[in-house]
Amino acid sequence: MLTISNRGNQMPPSPIRKLVPYAEATKKKGITVYHLNIGQPDIETPKPVLDAVRHSTFKVLEYSHSAGNESYRRKLVSYYAKNEIEIDHSQIIITTGGSEAILFGFMACMDAGDEVIIPEPFYANYNGFAVSAGINVVPITSHIENGFALPPIEDFEKAITSKTKAIVICNPNNPTGYLYSKAEMEVLKTIILKHNLYLFADEAYREFCYEGNHFSAMQLTGCDDNVVLMDTISKRYSCCGARVGAFITRNSALYNTAMKFAQARLSPPEFGQIAGEAAIDLPNDYFDITKAEYKARRDLIVQRLNNINGVFCPTPGGAFYAIAKLPIDDADRFCQWLLEEFDYERQTVMLAPATGFYGTKGLGKNEVRLAYVLNLDSINAAMNCLEEALKQYPERISN
Amino acid sequence: MLTISNRGNQMPPSPIRKLVPYAEATKKKGITVYHLNIGQPDIETPKPVLDAVRHSTFKVLEYSHSAGNESYRRKLVSYYAKNEIEIDHSQIIITTGGSEAILFGFMACMDAGDEVIIPEPFYANYNGFAVSAGINVVPITSHIENGFALPPIEDFEKAITSKTKAIVICNPNNPTGYLYSKAEMEVLKTIILKHNLYLFADEAYREFCYEGNHFSAMQLTGCDDNVVLMDTISKRYSCCGARVGAFITRNSALYNTAMKFAQARLSPPEFGQIAGEAAIDLPNDYFDITKAEYKARRDLIVQRLNNINGVFCPTPGGAFYAIAKLPIDDADRFCQWLLEEFDYERQTVMLAPATGFYGTKGLGKNEVRLAYVLNLDSINAAMNCLEEALKQYPERISN
Repeated sequence: MLTISNRGNQMPPSPIRKLVPYAEATKKKGITVYHLNIGQPDIETPKPVLDAVRHSTFKVLEYSHSAGNESYRRKLVSYYAKNEIEIDHSQIIITTGGSEAILFGFMACMDAGDEVIIPEPFYANYNGFAVSAGINVVPITSHIENGFALPPIEDFEKAITSKTKAIVICNPNNPTGYLYSKAEMEVLKTIILKHNLYLFADEAYREFCYEGNHFSAMQLTGCDDNVVLMDTISKRYSCCGARVGAFITRNSALYNTAMKFAQARLSPPEFGQIAGEAAIDLPNDYFDITKAEYKARRDLIVQRLNNINGVFCPTPGGAFYAIAKLPIDDADRFCQWLLEEFDYERQTVMLAPATGFYGTKGLGKNEVRLAYVLNLDSINAAMNCLEEALKQYPERISN
Repeated sequence: MLTISNRGNQMPPSPIRKLVPYAEATKKKGITVYHLNIGQPDIETPKPVLDAVRHSTFKVLEYSHSAGNESYRRKLVSYYAKNEIEIDHSQIIITTGGSEAILFGFMACMDAGDEVIIPEPFYANYNGFAVSAGINVVPITSHIENGFALPPIEDFEKAITSKTKAIVICNPNNPTGYLYSKAEMEVLKTIILKHNLYLFADEAYREFCYEGNHFSAMQLTGCDDNVVLMDTISKRYSCCGARVGAFITRNSALYNTAMKFAQARLSPPEFGQIAGEAAIDLPNDYFDITKAEYKARRDLIVQRLNNINGVFCPTPGGAFYAIAKLPIDDADRFCQWLLEEFDYERQTVMLAPATGFYGTKGLGKNEVRLAYVLNLDSINAAMNCLEEALKQYPERISN
């Protein structure tokens, strides 16, 4: 019999996208759906970025270098220098989205059966890339009560085995919005040096920190060979469709290995690289304006959530996500109910059940992730829906 | 100690790109290098295709559907119908290049330790994706003497084990240029039905068949669940840098599994999809003109090669590659020598040693792959170099 692979069966469906068919059915009934389920910003892509593509003049749409265009990599060096990250263009591989940077990292550092430790809740697609690479994610639980701070060092020590090869840290965090401090990053450095582990740092939301400053894993000293930066332009410049990211490491053996994976897939997308290169020339106030917008959204959504009876949402320090605890016992059922059975003045809201962001079964059942990627009016309307929904939901419980 | 993964160490360097540093050094000395090593056409990307991107008017560069834009998938149905391939848009996943279609196929159908049979010489990057997926490529040798026709059915039967899950066929073939006939495709159908195997068909060069007609694996009847089409717009429209391909199957369980891999990486590149969608509206004579150009190049390069003393090159029926047997005993050394130590009137030629296209060690040592992607003048100049080089090469042997 023709069979699907075990890895194909193990591959988890996206917790962000699995409810899409219900949302489509709801929209067909003429009901407005506010999408807080997915990190697709409504912020316009900066015009100079799109113009760079639209004004391109080449005649042949060629493969680029497998590591990406050298002009782009050289320019990225200046972007990172501005962020106090010192790297050379020969330490950068341009990837097809941050996704491919994660896959290259997992593939180049780990074999089937190896283990990677990730504080949970975590970006669900790490699971998908782990399944692709045949490696096991070992979650360490962070908690909503302290805003999802880094779990204590003892929890890492307990989780480390002879198969542990790496730790993944997403900073600021998707899905929790937690901004790890310099002190917490130094704790991670101690662990990776003690146990000879890689530290994969996903810093897709570097610019979106609302109180503290961002401290990059690449700023840690004395662990150059251990650190891999996985980056992307998707959120930074509202360029999700460009599919351009970067795999960055000062470890030359690892770089050369990742390059073999890069060569196999030939090159990253050319148009997206043109967009990414142009983005580096955006005026300095671009991030001030964008960050102020996201901060206003964050302040509104956190305030609205905590004003709802029975809801708790810690204030996220960065990114554009928040996790809220709701007076429900099954977030998957509630999120589906919001789409299938509920509307408030012909409107409803789509949320991502937090269960899909936990590696430990049973966790996150009364939590949802909200992406504050819509404007203030839409966030208010979405929160009106949620407030009303929690009054009507037949299976509401007391927390 | 920090270690590179075994799979990273096993990952083969690209036989097409590994000599690039020597070519760069040669160019720095002011010597012209004719690139016949890589399938990067010099044909201009059709203006309407680039214009579609340049005239795009959206404001936010969003993620597309994980399966690709529905408008593009629906339009692709008409492209395939013109090629007598009947599929529905719900059977298509737009991928990031043909590369990703291959990776999704391997990942969704096979687990670590499983085997895939591929006639050799074969497109070298199949090896890279096999290493990524932890599967083993079992080569069946085709031979230059009969132009690299499909090996006899007995060779397949001998190679099939309990671990065999699939056969890969690239038609017309890269690197040999061989065009498999309908009869040969029917032989493959007999094998896959008898042994319950998948047939992965890479048809990147479908339009470039110079004598016979192309017969697609999707035209085989009675094996809908077995066949996966791996496609790409890279060569068809000289759009290598778009990074847009397609994974196509009528097997819904397999489609749904591949979709989970597609969701993990979010979406294919948006600009490339716009290019691909526009390409379907190119006038009908686009392929007539392009094919005539490639045919003239093929005729010239094959004639020039066979006129060189000691060289044999069968006439390829399709694609834009040829494999030639040279009076040398180490193609890797010869190709490097061409770049490092040889020039003819300040010019030289870059070729791909055929060794990297064989799975069986020791084969292809007196063969090179030539991509006839340059104009007739450049091909003549490159052949002048090769002719002179074979006179001068100190380690020339008699075949």
